Amino acid sequence: MSSASEDHKQFADFARRLAEAARRETLPRFRAGAAVVNKAGAEFDPVTDADREAERVIADMVARAYPDHSFIGEEFGERIGAAPFRWIVDPVDGTRAFVCGAATWTTLVALERDGAPVLGIIDQPYTDEYWIGVDGDAQFTRAGKTIEARTSGLADISKARISTTDPRTDIYLKGEEADAFARLAAATRIARFSLDAYAYGLLAIGELDIVAETSLQVYDYAALRPVVEGAGGVVSNWRGDPVGTDDRGEVLAAATPELHRAAVEILSLRR
Amino acid sequence: MSSASEDHKQFADFARRLAEAARRETLPRFRAGAAVVNKAGAEFDPVTDADREAERVIADMVARAYPDHSFIGEEFGERIGAAPFRWIVDPVDGTRAFVCGAATWTTLVALERDGAPVLGIIDQPYTDEYWIGVDGDAQFTRAGKTIEARTSGLADISKARISTTDPRTDIYLKGEEADAFARLAAATRIARFSLDAYAYGLLAIGELDIVAETSLQVYDYAALRPVVEGAGGVVSNWRGDPVGTDDRGEVLAAATPELHRAAVEILSLRR
Repeated sequence: MSSASEDHKQFADFARRLAEAARRETLPRFRAGAAVVNKAGAEFDPVTDADREAERVIADMVARAYPDHSFIGEEFGERIGAAPFRWIVDPVDGTRAFVCGAATWTTLVALERDGAPVLGIIDQPYTDEYWIGVDGDAQFTRAGKTIEARTSGLADISKARISTTDPRTDIYLKGEEADAFARLAAATRIARFSLDAYAYGLLAIGELDIVAETSLQVYDYAALRPVVEGAGGVVSNWRGDPVGTDDRGEVLAAATPELHRAAVEILSLRR
Repeated sequence: MSSASEDHKQFADFARRLAEAARRETLPRFRAGAAVVNKAGAEFDPVTDADREAERVIADMVARAYPDHSFIGEEFGERIGAAPFRWIVDPVDGTRAFVCGAATWTTLVALERDGAPVLGIIDQPYTDEYWIGVDGDAQFTRAGKTIEARTSGLADISKARISTTDPRTDIYLKGEEADAFARLAAATRIARFSLDAYAYGLLAIGELDIVAETSLQVYDYAALRPVVEGAGGVVSNWRGDPVGTDDRGEVLAAATPELHRAAVEILSLRR
């Protein structure tokens, strides 16, 4: 075993403990009428005590274990360290799902080294579901039982199951992205909505075939790539370029390279 | 205790056993690549082995316990009995959710006496969640722990959380219903999609405030009314008339009479 993958094993164990600690903050507040604070002024963007307390706990654990690592979270911004490692955390992705009682919100944690993804986890506490992607592999654990996470392997887009946050034009998807998504959804077999990052977990275990979202921040998407790619899927922006190389926050995940190519072609947006 | 409510207690215990038996057919097939059959020809309407086997088991149990009761299911049609009771079953509501790995599909069972609702259950096996409405009360059980189900009590529509199956115009909602839903959603705070009958369960425990759907069949909606009304909510079609009094299959459920009145007014469809 190389020194690098020993590091990664250590980080994987640590990421698991981060998720467990976050669960103690999020789960008791789920469906408990947790106070919702409007952090974005007139625009609605709920954030709960769960969100803040979970990030606080994760940030503290990282600072204690790896004081020279950088850290960026959704709630409290960025801390810069001297080491080449950066932890990226969304304590409650899918706050709308959270406040509607739907168990599709997740805790997302990613680790980068020199800007390259090392590890990503997706954790859903209520259903006791945990995905981790590291070193090109991905695993799914539910209620203590772990399996290799593999995508569906689907290549035929006409059989695909697709997911996005909200298909309504001018609410989530706007302009050319709205038209492009409508084209893509029309080429598939089933569309599901409102799943947030949980959708990438479902893709990584072969239950969805395409996820297309936009306006994501780094803490929304950093954890997804190691999970989806470790399960055999492909992740890019909607134009086929690496996620994060533009300022639109587009993420397109597909079960196979063939499906990904077909989706980019149907989206047909200028690079 | 009156003889009528003794009957209902007996039926409530029996309904619970029906849900448990259905779980043995559905749960092992969830996320197991269950074969999907296209039962509606060109139009996509998936139905799995889970759907058929669960209905078979429920129909057999009802025929054995109550051979003179009527029975109507989604898969195998209707059986007419001499007694005033009719069981109404959707073995897997939300087959699209089922084939996408989302744990928001449910098993729905209702009992009517002389056409009036006696009892309704909503069961989600993967999350171990069970709602029952009977005799004007509703309860929610998760993992063996039972609580009274109560809606949020919300009266102010600008704070409401709303759910429908698919907000896209000309895919699920058509014509005046699409326009009316867009008006209604714009008046609320959060919209969630793709939850199917699970949304009524969330409404009954105060996690959603309005659910608006259309084109539902009797096996889709019969179980919902006892659960929502037992939790303090209101159920009608989109025009304020009783569900099932038109051929559109509209269902509008709201947490309170005030919220229901506001929603019907905003929908403002001709009766």
